[in-house]
Amino acid sequence: MFTVRERMLAKASGAHRPVVAFQGEHGAYSEEATLAFFGESLRTKPCRALKEVFRDVEGGAAEFGVVPVENSLEGSVNQTYDCLLQSPLRVCAELKLRVSHCLLGLPGTSSQDIRVVYSHPQALAQCSVFLETLRAVEEPVYDTAGSAKMIREKDMRDAAAIASEKAATLYGLNVLKKGIEDFSENFTRFLVVGQSQPAQTGRDKTSMVFGTKHSPGALHQALGQLATRGINLTKIESRPIKGKPWEYVFFVDFEGHQSDPVCFDALDALESSTTFVKFLGSYPLINA
Amino acid sequence: MFTVRERMLAKASGAHRPVVAFQGEHGAYSEEATLAFFGESLRTKPCRALKEVFRDVEGGAAEFGVVPVENSLEGSVNQTYDCLLQSPLRVCAELKLRVSHCLLGLPGTSSQDIRVVYSHPQALAQCSVFLETLRAVEEPVYDTAGSAKMIREKDMRDAAAIASEKAATLYGLNVLKKGIEDFSENFTRFLVVGQSQPAQTGRDKTSMVFGTKHSPGALHQALGQLATRGINLTKIESRPIKGKPWEYVFFVDFEGHQSDPVCFDALDALESSTTFVKFLGSYPLINA
Repeated sequence: MFTVRERMLAKASGAHRPVVAFQGEHGAYSEEATLAFFGESLRTKPCRALKEVFRDVEGGAAEFGVVPVENSLEGSVNQTYDCLLQSPLRVCAELKLRVSHCLLGLPGTSSQDIRVVYSHPQALAQCSVFLETLRAVEEPVYDTAGSAKMIREKDMRDAAAIASEKAATLYGLNVLKKGIEDFSENFTRFLVVGQSQPAQTGRDKTSMVFGTKHSPGALHQALGQLATRGINLTKIESRPIKGKPWEYVFFVDFEGHQSDPVCFDALDALESSTTFVKFLGSYPLINA
Repeated sequence: MFTVRERMLAKASGAHRPVVAFQGEHGAYSEEATLAFFGESLRTKPCRALKEVFRDVEGGAAEFGVVPVENSLEGSVNQTYDCLLQSPLRVCAELKLRVSHCLLGLPGTSSQDIRVVYSHPQALAQCSVFLETLRAVEEPVYDTAGSAKMIREKDMRDAAAIASEKAATLYGLNVLKKGIEDFSENFTRFLVVGQSQPAQTGRDKTSMVFGTKHSPGALHQALGQLATRGINLTKIESRPIKGKPWEYVFFVDFEGHQSDPVCFDALDALESSTTFVKFLGSYPLINA
């Protein structure tokens, strides 16, 4: 039997090594999740912004994109949801990565020298207890690995980065302290986006987004289409509708595949009790 | 008849000018919202982090705190929700501010000189269309006004800030371009947190947070306590439970006051159909 990733890669690759786009620099957690899932045989393509990842896959510069969707401490990655709403791409897998942060500095830099700590805002937030003991200024940058790269390139001797051990190796930094996250149960969930949809496995998950009418109980009624069918909701996320203040769309994940009669039926019923429904994808369910 | 803010200020102030804490530097949108609501007679206290705002009010260094909770384009401010969950403070008012961003630079800097644009990540995201035309690197910092202050203090001639016109005046910068947000319907909603609770006005709103049991339909059942009583839900936001991956609490705003029999009844019923309920406050409803 083939694994999902083997089937996905076999489908995508002809004679060439498939390209998978991710946000951040080499050494980013997104790249680590990509390599853990697909194996080392592919080419990873760093992108500065999440929407570049989507553009690369939509335009064919990459077969798949791997994007963070939520962290178990800091919550949803809003921009990923906004990209999913607009993009024609489908979600074709989910990945979960245990994230353990390290404090990294140039060789010779000690904890007492550190005046500024650079990292992605989510990583800074995940290490807030440790950072309070350090008494340095926190400066958010676009990527964890990017902060490590910057410290090396700009030879910053009074600064540290929060990133992975792999980033330390890649950019020649020392690990000053390991495991600095507030809670060891720190996981990030990523979605794989692409042009295709995997077949049903029997243990699947479906993602979709819908809008509700303006009336008391509208969301309750919509969720009722899942609840009354015994469908297990695993995540709900509201996002504002741009240009319509205080109106929202709801992103929902639930257990089951679009091809299950009960799920197909629920999606169909939702069409009539909401203002719109967009199906985002059905893909194999994985455990934490 | 007194307005809510007059009653709040009269209650708070003895012989001294009341202090209101906000996140950011002088000139931040939070300070603008504070002054628009409370008037100019109070003292505003800048704080670097949102949790400092809560700490100042909890410890008595400030009578009130004003914190952003959601933006109509970019959505919820996650850290504010996390602070609300942990803090004993109550929500005692909400404010809405129309946010119009400007591109600011030192006198002599023109749009062609700009290599880097600094601002709060939410402001950068709100101006994404304009920023794509500028082709400069985006660098997130902790505050909009803080980015303007930095450009002045560090004499950065190849950089620009995204902040308010007021910040331009305060830090001696030129407005290179006004109204650079992607959508003109750009509002931020702020909450006023404090030790007291305002009286019922007849047009009120209640905020609370609850946890749900692990069973299909648990959220649907909880929301049913509001829906079946005809209570209008205005916002729902899920946040992860720290240390319990893929478990969530739900922050909910609905129309009505805790003292309304129907709302009191709904809160009571929620206690029995959820794992916990925390009441956050009832306060006057304001329109967009």
